[in-house]
Amino acid sequence: MKLAIAGMGNNASALMQGVELYRENPESLSGVKHHYIHGVHVTDVDLVIGFDSDESKVGRPVPVALLESSNTFPLIHALGHLDGVVVQRGITNPEDRAQVEFVSRSLRESGAEVLLYSLPTGRDSMALAYARAAIRSGVHLVNCTPDPMGTHPEVRTAAQAAGVLVVGDDLQSHLGSSVVHGALLELLERRGIDLAGSYQINLGGNADFANLVTNGANKERSKYNALRQRVGDTASVTVVPAGAFVPYLGDQKVAHLQIAGIGWAGTPVRIEVNLAVQDSSNAAGVIIDLVRLAARGPSYDGEVFPIAAGTLLKSPPRTGSKTWLQDSLDALATAADVHE
Amino acid sequence: MKLAIAGMGNNASALMQGVELYRENPESLSGVKHHYIHGVHVTDVDLVIGFDSDESKVGRPVPVALLESSNTFPLIHALGHLDGVVVQRGITNPEDRAQVEFVSRSLRESGAEVLLYSLPTGRDSMALAYARAAIRSGVHLVNCTPDPMGTHPEVRTAAQAAGVLVVGDDLQSHLGSSVVHGALLELLERRGIDLAGSYQINLGGNADFANLVTNGANKERSKYNALRQRVGDTASVTVVPAGAFVPYLGDQKVAHLQIAGIGWAGTPVRIEVNLAVQDSSNAAGVIIDLVRLAARGPSYDGEVFPIAAGTLLKSPPRTGSKTWLQDSLDALATAADVHE
Amino acid sequence: MKLAIAGMGNNASALMQGVELYRENPESLSGVKHHYIHGVHVTDVDLVIGFDSDESKVGRPVPVALLESSNTFPLIHALGHLDGVVVQRGITNPEDRAQVEFVSRSLRESGAEVLLYSLPTGRDSMALAYARAAIRSGVHLVNCTPDPMGTHPEVRTAAQAAGVLVVGDDLQSHLGSSVVHGALLELLERRGIDLAGSYQINLGGNADFANLVTNGANKERSKYNALRQRVGDTASVTVVPAGAFVPYLGDQKVAHLQIAGIGWAGTPVRIEVNLAVQDSSNAAGVIIDLVRLAARGPSYDGEVFPIAAGTLLKSPPRTGSKTWLQDSLDALATAADVHE
Amino acid sequence: MKLAIAGMGNNASALMQGVELYRENPESLSGVKHHYIHGVHVTDVDLVIGFDSDESKVGRPVPVALLESSNTFPLIHALGHLDGVVVQRGITNPEDRAQVEFVSRSLRESGAEVLLYSLPTGRDSMALAYARAAIRSGVHLVNCTPDPMGTHPEVRTAAQAAGVLVVGDDLQSHLGSSVVHGALLELLERRGIDLAGSYQINLGGNADFANLVTNGANKERSKYNALRQRVGDTASVTVVPAGAFVPYLGDQKVAHLQIAGIGWAGTPVRIEVNLAVQDSSNAAGVIIDLVRLAARGPSYDGEVFPIAAGTLLKSPPRTGSKTWLQDSLDALATAADVHE
Repeated sequence: MKLAIAGMGNNASALMQGVELYRENPESLSGVKHHYIHGVHVTDVDLVIGFDSDESKVGRPVPVALLESSNTFPLIHALGHLDGVVVQRGITNPEDRAQVEFVSRSLRESGAEVLLYSLPTGRDSMALAYARAAIRSGVHLVNCTPDPMGTHPEVRTAAQAAGVLVVGDDLQSHLGSSVVHGALLELLERRGIDLAGSYQINLGGNADFANLVTNGANKERSKYNALRQRVGDTASVTVVPAGAFVPYLGDQKVAHLQIAGIGWAGTPVRIEVNLAVQDSSNAAGVIIDLVRLAARGPSYDGEVFPIAAGTLLKSPPRTGSKTWLQDSLDALATAADVHE
Repeated sequence: MKLAIAGMGNNASALMQGVELYRENPESLSGVKHHYIHGVHVTDVDLVIGFDSDESKVGRPVPVALLESSNTFPLIHALGHLDGVVVQRGITNPEDRAQVEFVSRSLRESGAEVLLYSLPTGRDSMALAYARAAIRSGVHLVNCTPDPMGTHPEVRTAAQAAGVLVVGDDLQSHLGSSVVHGALLELLERRGIDLAGSYQINLGGNADFANLVTNGANKERSKYNALRQRVGDTASVTVVPAGAFVPYLGDQKVAHLQIAGIGWAGTPVRIEVNLAVQDSSNAAGVIIDLVRLAARGPSYDGEVFPIAAGTLLKSPPRTGSKTWLQDSLDALATAADVHE
Repeated sequence: MKLAIAGMGNNASALMQGVELYRENPESLSGVKHHYIHGVHVTDVDLVIGFDSDESKVGRPVPVALLESSNTFPLIHALGHLDGVVVQRGITNPEDRAQVEFVSRSLRESGAEVLLYSLPTGRDSMALAYARAAIRSGVHLVNCTPDPMGTHPEVRTAAQAAGVLVVGDDLQSHLGSSVVHGALLELLERRGIDLAGSYQINLGGNADFANLVTNGANKERSKYNALRQRVGDTASVTVVPAGAFVPYLGDQKVAHLQIAGIGWAGTPVRIEVNLAVQDSSNAAGVIIDLVRLAARGPSYDGEVFPIAAGTLLKSPPRTGSKTWLQDSLDALATAADVHE
Repeated sequence: MKLAIAGMGNNASALMQGVELYRENPESLSGVKHHYIHGVHVTDVDLVIGFDSDESKVGRPVPVALLESSNTFPLIHALGHLDGVVVQRGITNPEDRAQVEFVSRSLRESGAEVLLYSLPTGRDSMALAYARAAIRSGVHLVNCTPDPMGTHPEVRTAAQAAGVLVVGDDLQSHLGSSVVHGALLELLERRGIDLAGSYQINLGGNADFANLVTNGANKERSKYNALRQRVGDTASVTVVPAGAFVPYLGDQKVAHLQIAGIGWAGTPVRIEVNLAVQDSSNAAGVIIDLVRLAARGPSYDGEVFPIAAGTLLKSPPRTGSKTWLQDSLDALATAADVHE
């Protein structure tokens, strides 16, 4: 499966190092949920082209660019087999048609089936520009970020016309604060404990996170979307996607959660959670499924589009035919499970 | 609904204070999941007789006995309307037939429909003696403790012959460490994060807990049963039901959980949870459902027995006809929900 | 000891309710460090006048104003004996000389010895206006907030000329995140564990805290000052005074701390702390000492001024004669201890 | 400085790997408090002989024995230069004079200056046997364990007669739960917050810890000794040295602490701490100081003996002349600091 990536940062590093690691240790696929999705094995994913606008990365071999100092994901496995892939200059001005055209042509020539969009959050027009480039080349899209792509009307219309899948927006972490928070709030609801209030505050130390601290509006909206997939009432829940940029954490992400419940006879129930994850691994563990779903997703049937890969996304587009969507997802999940 | 209780400790105190509180504030039923179960409202539950063997409680009015110094559940609401109910001397020697006969006769004369068994854990023969007394009088049983009753062959056979329901053994807390631990382990499994290992250690400060520290074997077994209801593999999970008796905690119970997972590319995921609950409220919030289920449960049909109130119990008996059991529970749940 | 308060919020409520509580239960002074300071007992502190600009408080008796809905400090003890003290309209426009004059005259007429300044943080000119009013009337000052008063040149010069003490700025909490953080960082240093990095993030739910989220600059500076009193190097320490306003916390304040150390052979040491306090009690437990120090502090000797009550303040003024300052504080501490 | 070790477990592994690591990276002594003590540099410590009774270790080169599977301390640095040192068979029967004599003679022949005693806790007679062997050869002693050695009358008398130093018993961790707990309790006391209660519960996964779960009596006593060095009243403090053996933790040790305080107006203060350390590094960071102190300690002056290395030990012997002891320690500390 031929993959293109826009944004040669930590996510790209975690994804490609993981693939290499599993190739060398095929007997131990720890941390991998679906060995196969629609016939594509984890280790079948190959990077064919990468884009970035950082001068320290452009023009350099992928293995060098991915270990560049602004990337804080640790070296887990050498990436020698990607020595031949050189990072291309990506879009710097979304209004510049020549740049969009260059990306579009490069994608086509590389043979990429899917473009993973993984630039820093909060640049809506950049997301739009890459989406246009991919759609023009008939390359499917996976959007890691909360910036509108799957939920952007123009993108959806153009993608539908071109038969291109748009999987997004924003991914659920493999195991992140939204999914843990949602599971616990849901548990309270199910057990009949009333909610007095709850908060979730996230801290991190990578470049993405530094960016979030100032450009967090899309992310905050997306996190509430994720919670609302699981619990009805989020009025008394406070979510802070980026409470502080803490440099020493590097690519680690920490979340503090508190859930204050009211039990029998009005007595208190208190749950406090500290969650620590490797941020980019946490993304890569879901990206590996999304790019395979995008590459071999349900063929476009002229009606409902794009697919929303349910539990893997925070802000999937809401279409009228929720049932079809659910059916489609269930079908995907079943198909994937069969091959595990 | 006429209730008898064996063991006038914190559970009885939390249960009856809660009922009184809700009677006085009928508009605010915070912490109550099912307002009605089979037509019985939370505030319809009435204590008609109580047993204990503690000399400081026997012969005294229930409101006085429940606030006796060894009970650490706080005063939340006065219990004046129970002034007329006097604590009876319970069984002290399970082999003494006269004592068992006295309890049996007292139950019958009180008109009790259900006997709640809530003595300190680890006294198997005491549980058996009370079960015999109740069955002899045709009174249904709810067993709060992990000591065998619903899972005891003699009790099941005799109860079946007498048309008596036995709901037990051991209750899931309204929201306790087992259910939170299970939910998080299940979440890891569902998300495809591998488990490196996990622990759960509980601390408390009431008389029940002091007893658990030395008599914890049944409880430990029961806690693993509860986890296994949700996750397949508990080999790398360490559960310590009573890590330390900490007097200042009183009726509060604290649990520390750690879950160490392995994510994409072998990178770590760490979840740490502190859970603090009012122990006896946590029990009472489930007891209130179980006693109503026991009082108005499915009529005995001569085949599968006793009922296991699914998610409310840690160690329900396992019968051959799991499907029937499930159906029965679903039916109960549905019926209960209808009346909410 | 006659006290005036500017700002009839949670701090005033906690302070005066505590004084009343201890008056009624003189045998149990839990949470009080110095029973006497310079001969003044905790219960000798009396409110003689209060200022506020909130229409729901102005003109109302103090007990009513202090329990007004925007105050989230709980009712701990009735304040009946203050029924006769009516809240005066405070300064709304710091440039309005008539307002400043009114406060000054009211202070003088009330016989107040000390004015406690406890308005929301981030209003430098308001702090200045109240300081001018107090100095004009010869009333000593205690400044709860990080807004410059003790560290303000004009205030210091004028106070010195008028023989008025200015105790401030910003108080250490009785036991707050700064002091806990400092103690642990100091411990690492003393044990020879190197610091990889550390963070402290605070959350709260009262009006003061809501104000901090947007006006936090002075507070952040002050918190770093507090840490630097104890540890030399704070370069790798991130402090977030107000990470999120979380309404359900009310007057409770929560802090999350992490300390990442490097031990023998480069192996990691990790300390994670959750701290939960009643915010206003935490202030009142220190205010009770500061107002007594201010009322009976060392008589002005023409040289070093104002006093800085060392461990009770976050941002005491730095004067040239650090030794004298320390001596003075030690003398105060000793004097206070003698009377305990 | 020539060192002998009894017990080739994790402590020995952490100590010698650290020494090697610092030899190779002399510019980065992270985690080392005193570079020099009495002229001996961290990297001057050399292992000349090791004892163990485990058949998988006896007769094998030290680097092999230290990485044997029962040792869970990770490989941090190769130990090639110790290939020539072979593990000797240690004492298996403390009553067998020939075994004691063999150890004694081996120590003498090796030229060892100090014997580090680091066997599993709870074997009092084993500690005694090794002490006898060392004293007989004029080799100074450092006792890592809480088993009586420095506090054992026979050992002290014999050591005094032979001019041998006994540094012990039990070491403070470099940064462990006792020292963190003590620092926080002391802080409460200093700030005037009353203590409602507190607990400390420890979990671990190495062989030492498994042993502690069953043989924890000496350790528990020693931990209370450590706390009492810092706070007066430990009546409401519960300490559980070994709450559970949790295999997946390996050589990591985790402690959960809670401190419940009472602040102004009786309102609660709650501190919760999770502490995670590499257990054996935590010991080695202190051992490296103790063995250098023992090797170059104050010459025996016929009066007070043995030395107690104050803040590095949990249960130092209490002698009459506390002042001398303190002076001696201060002198040592000063001398050490000079060379830092």
